[in-house]
Amino acid sequence: MSEVRSGTDRKRILLVTAYDGTAYCGWQVQKNGETIEGVLNRELSALFGEDIVVTGASRTDSGVHALGNVAVFDTQARMPAEKVAYALNGRLPDDIRIQRSFEVPSDFHPRRTSCVKTYEYRILNREFELPSERLNSYFFRRKLDAERMKAACPYLIGEHDFKSFCSIHTQAETTVRTIYSLSVETQPFPTQMDRTAYPAGPGSLICIRVTGNGFLYNMVRILAGTLIQVGLGAYAPEDVEAMLEARDRQAAGPTAPAKGLTLVGMQYPEYPDFPL
Amino acid sequence: MSEVRSGTDRKRILLVTAYDGTAYCGWQVQKNGETIEGVLNRELSALFGEDIVVTGASRTDSGVHALGNVAVFDTQARMPAEKVAYALNGRLPDDIRIQRSFEVPSDFHPRRTSCVKTYEYRILNREFELPSERLNSYFFRRKLDAERMKAACPYLIGEHDFKSFCSIHTQAETTVRTIYSLSVETQPFPTQMDRTAYPAGPGSLICIRVTGNGFLYNMVRILAGTLIQVGLGAYAPEDVEAMLEARDRQAAGPTAPAKGLTLVGMQYPEYPDFPL
Repeated sequence: MSEVRSGTDRKRILLVTAYDGTAYCGWQVQKNGETIEGVLNRELSALFGEDIVVTGASRTDSGVHALGNVAVFDTQARMPAEKVAYALNGRLPDDIRIQRSFEVPSDFHPRRTSCVKTYEYRILNREFELPSERLNSYFFRRKLDAERMKAACPYLIGEHDFKSFCSIHTQAETTVRTIYSLSVETQPFPTQMDRTAYPAGPGSLICIRVTGNGFLYNMVRILAGTLIQVGLGAYAPEDVEAMLEARDRQAAGPTAPAKGLTLVGMQYPEYPDFPL
Repeated sequence: MSEVRSGTDRKRILLVTAYDGTAYCGWQVQKNGETIEGVLNRELSALFGEDIVVTGASRTDSGVHALGNVAVFDTQARMPAEKVAYALNGRLPDDIRIQRSFEVPSDFHPRRTSCVKTYEYRILNREFELPSERLNSYFFRRKLDAERMKAACPYLIGEHDFKSFCSIHTQAETTVRTIYSLSVETQPFPTQMDRTAYPAGPGSLICIRVTGNGFLYNMVRILAGTLIQVGLGAYAPEDVEAMLEARDRQAAGPTAPAKGLTLVGMQYPEYPDFPL
């Protein structure tokens, strides 16, 4: 307690943040409704007794979930950076949990640094909804052909102009992005059971997983909505190539609902030592 | 609509019922609080315009979940039994969903017929809670040795007097039960991901799965609480043999919390054709 820190002892702390987005109006602070950013600002400020404002890496939409969204904030507090996760979790509601906290360089900015993000879109494809899956999957009753969905993926991987897969409300300067990987996996449902033991017969959880160097507004949800249409037979898998070439939002499928989407995590290639 | 059914046309319909028990005071109707049975009675009565009372197979405790609990009710309604699941789901809150409905013999009673039940107890064993798992797993931070837990299982399988694994508040005439199978499985977490992609490092979901011909009051939760103590090293795996022999609730481990428990499903050996 005898140690004195000067004003130059500010440090920047990164928070790996998991949340169930069901009850929130998205990440970004807004006037009408609780947001993830708003809760973090309020509880960090109370914890440290100073006004704290976080800067988030990904401003997820209302209803979207995260396992590893990134936020940073500056503080003069002497608490070791690694302990912040424990201290903050004690104050947070149970639908937000910090998974890790650590100090980062004071000039690190989570949105202005090139970044690789991974998202997952979960589709519960069976006859009836399941209460245990209702918060983080999109229930879709009509049978989807996952093999068709898988066959569409290779056309989307790589550097493309994804203008057809971007909300018309985008403010992006360019709509060129690179998808490093895109996969469709099916799991018998519920995942913890062998199928034979499941009382209500067949069904599956279809997980679309995509990793890229940046995503346009609604891009993952439009990719999911398009793959669903392919799975229904409305489009052929190879049709997505023409959708890309059209550079027209009307050419691609609908935007799938927010609740099926989870930001799994992100990595910063310029900072390979970050324990993300 | 010209068909006339007489009062003798009553039929008995079975409902395979899934629910998230978080918001309910258990299955059985009670004065102070909403229950699964209460919701089913109310919505079935409204659907058919007659007073309907269901009879449940398993009166799950407050906070316990189900994927396939069984209930039956009698009605004179002409709606085909298979359609009841659809009609009723349209009226139910999203944390209760019927998975299947079908007609059963009018003398079938879900509790007085011998039955095989399967339960699952889920333990989230990692450093921090995960919002996506908060409703249907028990978060336990201290590292559990799943191999030790597995090693304890064989002592519990078979016909035993489970008095040590039964709440002292039981009304059962006999405490002898048969466990047909008991297993402990670990999954990297979250299950839909490869571990390397998970942002917050290692951790696992430990699933205890047990099938038997009947379970005493709190029996699965006491089995889970005991296996957790074995996983911590407080007991040796072989100690559970002496616990059984003691026939004393004090000899076994604590009762694990309700939220980790799910009634997966049940089967009636005398009715092998039931599509359960």
